[in-house]
Parts: sequence; structure tokens; C-alpha cells
Amino acid sequence: MQAEEGLARLRALGFGEVDAQELWEHFDAAEKRGKPSHGHPRIPWLEELEGYDPSAEPKLLVDEEGFQRWDSGGAIGYLVLARVVRAQLERPPAHARLVVCEQTFPTGMLGHHVRRLADGGLVALLTTTSPRRLAHPSGGPKLASTSPLAIAIPSSGGDPVVTDVSMAAVTWGDVVAGLGKEEDVVPFGGEQAHKSFAIAVGLQLLVDALAQEEGHASVLLVARPESDPVPALRTLAAGVRLPGDG
Amino acid sequence: MQAEEGLARLRALGFGEVDAQELWEHFDAAEKRGKPSHGHPRIPWLEELEGYDPSAEPKLLVDEEGFQRWDSGGAIGYLVLARVVRAQLERPPAHARLVVCEQTFPTGMLGHHVRRLADGGLVALLTTTSPRRLAHPSGGPKLASTSPLAIAIPSSGGDPVVTDVSMAAVTWGDVVAGLGKEEDVVPFGGEQAHKSFAIAVGLQLLVDALAQEEGHASVLLVARPESDPVPALRTLAAGVRLPGDG
Repeated sequence: MQAEEGLARLRALGFGEVDAQELWEHFDAAEKRGKPSHGHPRIPWLEELEGYDPSAEPKLLVDEEGFQRWDSGGAIGYLVLARVVRAQLERPPAHARLVVCEQTFPTGMLGHHVRRLADGGLVALLTTTSPRRLAHPSGGPKLASTSPLAIAIPSSGGDPVVTDVSMAAVTWGDVVAGLGKEEDVVPFGGEQAHKSFAIAVGLQLLVDALAQEEGHASVLLVARPESDPVPALRTLAAGVRLPGDG
Repeated sequence: MQAEEGLARLRALGFGEVDAQELWEHFDAAEKRGKPSHGHPRIPWLEELEGYDPSAEPKLLVDEEGFQRWDSGGAIGYLVLARVVRAQLERPPAHARLVVCEQTFPTGMLGHHVRRLADGGLVALLTTTSPRRLAHPSGGPKLASTSPLAIAIPSSGGDPVVTDVSMAAVTWGDVVAGLGKEEDVVPFGGEQAHKSFAIAVGLQLLVDALAQEEGHASVLLVARPESDPVPALRTLAAGVRLPGDG
């Protein structure tokens, strides 16, 4: 899909110009990073999705030095996190800040959000909930979200390191994009899948415990770095690909 | 090993009575939870370990509502985290607090520390660095710690959920305890080991970026819960074992 078509279809959904641009950049970045499951196919998917208000504005409910609570106000998750990221870059914490984003769904490729924070010089860790799709590896009901975990670390050398891992062997995004089967949305790791399941349950409950309202939410940790470990790691890695490298 | 022998050997290493008790409880809890790699064999291991001062006192260097920085002051990691955990329980954050613990090694079974916070009603997430033992699944130099991630969520129903996962297929603790081979200390997950490797690198760099000094460190997030999601998850799980269940 070309930008012109994508932007036109987003505008037709009711998004303003800035938000349409923000969404297009997210989807297009996913395509370029080889994650088409979070890419252009999300535009027809948004055309079918219900429950968001394209003109809504996220609200900052609690604003302290080390803690913020936001509510989507009905805005779509992608744009809630985009707004929250901008707010952190405009007013970074002296040390660290935990940010809870209520009613925030869908949020897309979490690496996109934390990368922007790292590009702005901040350390970031982000996770989010979504419908429960992961059962215990030995069976039973679906108990946890695919519980992606994204971590980004800035670098004086330019390129941040960006981890962005779903606990599912095949992500729901892959299913949406027709790249995977629903029955393969299981905790990753084969005979050690109990480990990814445990991380998924832990992250799910972390978000659920910090949110005040029922529903999907995101939890973001933002911090000012005190050291610059990435250049030394890249030297040590001697060309081995690090997470998030293009 | 019986408590009497364990405590006597810890006292003989120079630990005071309270600290010897704290260490014994840690090792004995690991035995009882089926993690002997963090259990009694750590006492002979401590008898060989160098670089810690059994009488040292951890220091609180920065103390703000949403952020603390501690330094071990030469104390062994287990006791630094024990002290830090007690400090959080005595004076919990209004919302959330990030705690960076410099020069903190070895730290043992991370689930033990976060479980105490959850038993005291707090949400906790903890990770730590140690010698680099994980290479990229396709080879190359060792780039990341085994990077354990522990998450604990309190429950009004009594039993918290406690995730405690190492990114290694076989942990270094298993090697120390003679339960695994050094060549199996690789990222877990088989053909999807790139995922656990990416988490390990992200967590390693998170800790390294937040610490001011070179060396191993721990990063702890402590927060006051706003919701109580564990009882409903246990009902949904209908008897399926959740992380940390005995």
C-alpha cells in the first residue's frame, strides 16, 4: 500500500491529519522492519474494528514526578501511546517515571513506541494487555495475553537497542495478517514454553494490578540513563545482530 | 543440610545473626520450592566466593518518592536486596518507585525477594545482571547475563502469583549445583531462542543503563496495586498451576 492510499483510508475513518500521519508512520515502520503483521494490513483491520473514537483525546489523570496515569478517553491505543511518548519526551523524569495507560488498545508494534523514547535519549520498558490467548503449555483455559515486552536503550553511537518480543510462538498479528494459524498462538519455547507462559502471566497481572479500570491497558517505565552501555556491547558483539537492528 | 549446620557455616563466614538467618531462609526456601540450584549448595559456594564483606551495610544514596539508588557498600547481593525489600515494605511508594541497586551480586532466587513484597501487598518486578553467559542463538561471543525476570502480584486471596524466569535453558545455578552442563547455558526456546536472547539483552542493557558504576546491579520496580486481579485469574484457571504455586 502506498502512503497516499493509506492516509486517505485513515482520514476516511475520521482521523485528523496529525493522527492519520502518526498511524501511517506506525504501520509503514512495521512493514519496513519486516513485521507486516503490524503493518499495512492493519488499515483494513481498523476499518472493521469497533469501539474507538477517532476524534477522542487521551487524558492525563494523575501527574506526579515519578508516576502518571492516563486514560484513552476513547482514543485508539496506538494514538494514546503516541501521545504519552511525546509527553515523556517533552517533560522527561529527573530519574524515572511509571506510566499507566487505561483503556489502551490496540497498541501495535510496541518497539515503535519505545524506540521513539530511546531516540530521544530515554530508557523505556513497555508492556500491554489484549484478549487472553495463551493457555498453560499443558492445556486448560486461555489465561494470558500474548503479553509483548519491549525495552529500548539509547546509544551515544546512534542506533538504540530495541527488544520487542511477544510471548506467543505465532502472534495474533500474524493471524490477522494471514501469516499464521490461530492454533499456533501458544507460549513460545517448545518444551520450555512454561517459561514464556510464566512471563506472560506475570506481565498480564502487572498491568491488571496497576490499572484501576477493567479492560486492556499498557504500562510504561521511562527512565533517564546514567550510563551508555550500548556502544561497548556493539563492540563486544563484533557484528552479531542485536535486537531491533535493521 | 539442616538449619543448625547451615547457620553455623554462615556465621563462620562472618555474617551476623540476622544476616545468617536471612541467608539461610533464602537457601532453604529455594530447596523447598524445588530450586536446589539456589538452595543449600550455595553455602559451600559462598565459602569459596570472594569479593564481599559479611559485615558491610548497604547504603541508600538517593531517596525520592519515585526513585531510590542503593549501593551494596560491599555487602553480598542477597542481603542488599533483603535490605531494599524491607525498606520498601516499611515505606511503600504512594504509586510507584524504581530502585536501582549498584554492585549487587549474587542475588539468588529473585522470586524470593519479590514474593516478600507481594506478601506485604506490593506489586514488584525485579531483574539483575551477572557474568555474561548467553550468546546469540546463531553463535558469537557471550553478550548477556542469564537475565532473570521476576514479577510478583499480591492477592486478597492470600497466595500471590510469582513469576521467576531465567532466559537460559539451563541456569548457571544448575551448573553450580551440578544439575546442568555449562554448554547448555544458552537462551531458552529452541528454534525461537532469538526471543529469549532479545529479552536477555534488553534486561541486561536496562540494568547497565540505569547503574552509574560498572559491575553487576539490580533494578526493582515496586508499585501499589490499584486492582486485585489474582483471585479472578485463579477462578478462570480452574486449578491450572500458576507461576510460583507450590
